[in-house]
Amino acid sequence: MSFSVTILGNSAAKPTPHAHPSAQVVNLNEQYYLIDAGEGVQHQLIRRGINPLRLRAIFISHLHGDHCFGLIPLLATLGLEGKRTPIEIYAPAPMGEILEFNRKIFLEDLPYEIKWHEVRTTEHRIIMENNTLEVWSIPLRHRVPTAGFHFKEKQPQRNVDKFKIEKYGLSIAQIVAAKRGEDILLEDGQMIANEEITYIPHKARSYAYLSDTNYSAKAAERVKGVDLLYHETTYGQSDEMWAAGRGHSTTIEAAKVAQKAEAKHLIIGHFSARYRDYEALAEECRTIFANTDVATEGATFTIEKEQ
Amino acid sequence: MSFSVTILGNSAAKPTPHAHPSAQVVNLNEQYYLIDAGEGVQHQLIRRGINPLRLRAIFISHLHGDHCFGLIPLLATLGLEGKRTPIEIYAPAPMGEILEFNRKIFLEDLPYEIKWHEVRTTEHRIIMENNTLEVWSIPLRHRVPTAGFHFKEKQPQRNVDKFKIEKYGLSIAQIVAAKRGEDILLEDGQMIANEEITYIPHKARSYAYLSDTNYSAKAAERVKGVDLLYHETTYGQSDEMWAAGRGHSTTIEAAKVAQKAEAKHLIIGHFSARYRDYEALAEECRTIFANTDVATEGATFTIEKEQ
Repeated sequence: MSFSVTILGNSAAKPTPHAHPSAQVVNLNEQYYLIDAGEGVQHQLIRRGINPLRLRAIFISHLHGDHCFGLIPLLATLGLEGKRTPIEIYAPAPMGEILEFNRKIFLEDLPYEIKWHEVRTTEHRIIMENNTLEVWSIPLRHRVPTAGFHFKEKQPQRNVDKFKIEKYGLSIAQIVAAKRGEDILLEDGQMIANEEITYIPHKARSYAYLSDTNYSAKAAERVKGVDLLYHETTYGQSDEMWAAGRGHSTTIEAAKVAQKAEAKHLIIGHFSARYRDYEALAEECRTIFANTDVATEGATFTIEKEQ
Repeated sequence: MSFSVTILGNSAAKPTPHAHPSAQVVNLNEQYYLIDAGEGVQHQLIRRGINPLRLRAIFISHLHGDHCFGLIPLLATLGLEGKRTPIEIYAPAPMGEILEFNRKIFLEDLPYEIKWHEVRTTEHRIIMENNTLEVWSIPLRHRVPTAGFHFKEKQPQRNVDKFKIEKYGLSIAQIVAAKRGEDILLEDGQMIANEEITYIPHKARSYAYLSDTNYSAKAAERVKGVDLLYHETTYGQSDEMWAAGRGHSTTIEAAKVAQKAEAKHLIIGHFSARYRDYEALAEECRTIFANTDVATEGATFTIEKEQ
């Protein structure tokens, strides 16, 4: 069961010829989830070998153009491609109004349904859940209502040790019960503790996307123990006055969030057009949080399984 | 005085990883005019070295996404770049409604004014005029109201032959009068015919953009004598049933329009995603109209001056 994040764009609002605006794809066991949809996201998906038809849901952090101008074009293309299954969109208001308006002009006669779920950006709560995944909203501090997203893999079912199956001659029914965490009563009346015959295949993994935002200690607390953390670093530390005034973070602030959250790995992006040397920005982060990397366009970050 | 067209995108509605949707820039004497604004047009402008702040006006042929999804992002960026002078937009309804809706969400507090001029797509008339240029709307035959655009350079003022200035000892006032086309009365009472002392520096040049459309003999008549003609060729000849049904043209139809219009040069584009070999499509056109080229992304076509 793979869990990875592919970066489709890492630039801030002003376009540059060498970088695309915010967009990422989370892949959990070949289920694809799009986070943010800057202009050109549909091209970026195709370039990275991800068929847009495979997206199960789309999460939009806030309604600034550099995070969502690619959404309506993507939805239009999904119509041209003959999509039939619904698409779920999680986004703050006024996304409903935007979808309704565009439906009249650009999204007429779509062969599939768009289901919009309003994200309340002041609430820390589960906004999506399925068999393998929970997604939580993380309130952020930006100029407009903005939420981060915390992708939390559900704890995988326990595996039953195959040597123990043989040793105790377990039946299918007993194996299923053991996977659910039950203790097993053998035919001879012996009770076997669940922990003796099962093990956790790997720890549940998690990814958090925090963009766009000022420094938020509360956000750090809410993603405590996250495996992979994306935090925006629109500015280097020398431009911290800009960050403060514009609802953005510096390298050092992003690193402090990673440190406070006890994250395992920090990736940074949403770089202002004034920077070209992203590696230098990562270096600033590493003075506080060593395991920092640039969320390079096209890069895929895999969260490895741990026992 | 240069007159050229730079191709920013040449693909049809379905995105491909190797081509951008419709957008072009006309450059007449360093005055820049954008025709259509497919998704990513602002990136394409920057890539081709054209500062978006230099655009004087934007012409949108019709309101299908592949011709205008890049408009609102471009307008937002012009705001971020601090544009102060108005931008003129020529487009069919409901562009007014689109601008009004997006103004509330994505185009708040722009530092410049957007002036929308409705293009009535059933009318063949001048929609824009300045000292050097007229732009005419050309009614087209597509699935939604669509206009082509005919860029007609104004006939440059006559030049006065410098040998004749010397020969007749013309004053500044007489030279200015001669440039206006007047005959000149010399001090000795002799009348000099204007044609004897002046000449036309070059013929007025023209460019026509016809996309998207079914074959239209009327459109061909209306751009008669055009120097450079862009005509859509969404389909090759073998797919002509598709073209007919979808409001598009084939290679052969585009070539027939060029022939009927007595164009000097045809460039083709708006290619369906099913084609990769655009040169083969140009070859089909050349069976009817020899001087055909692919409107390759990034290419600039210059209309040379002729006496």
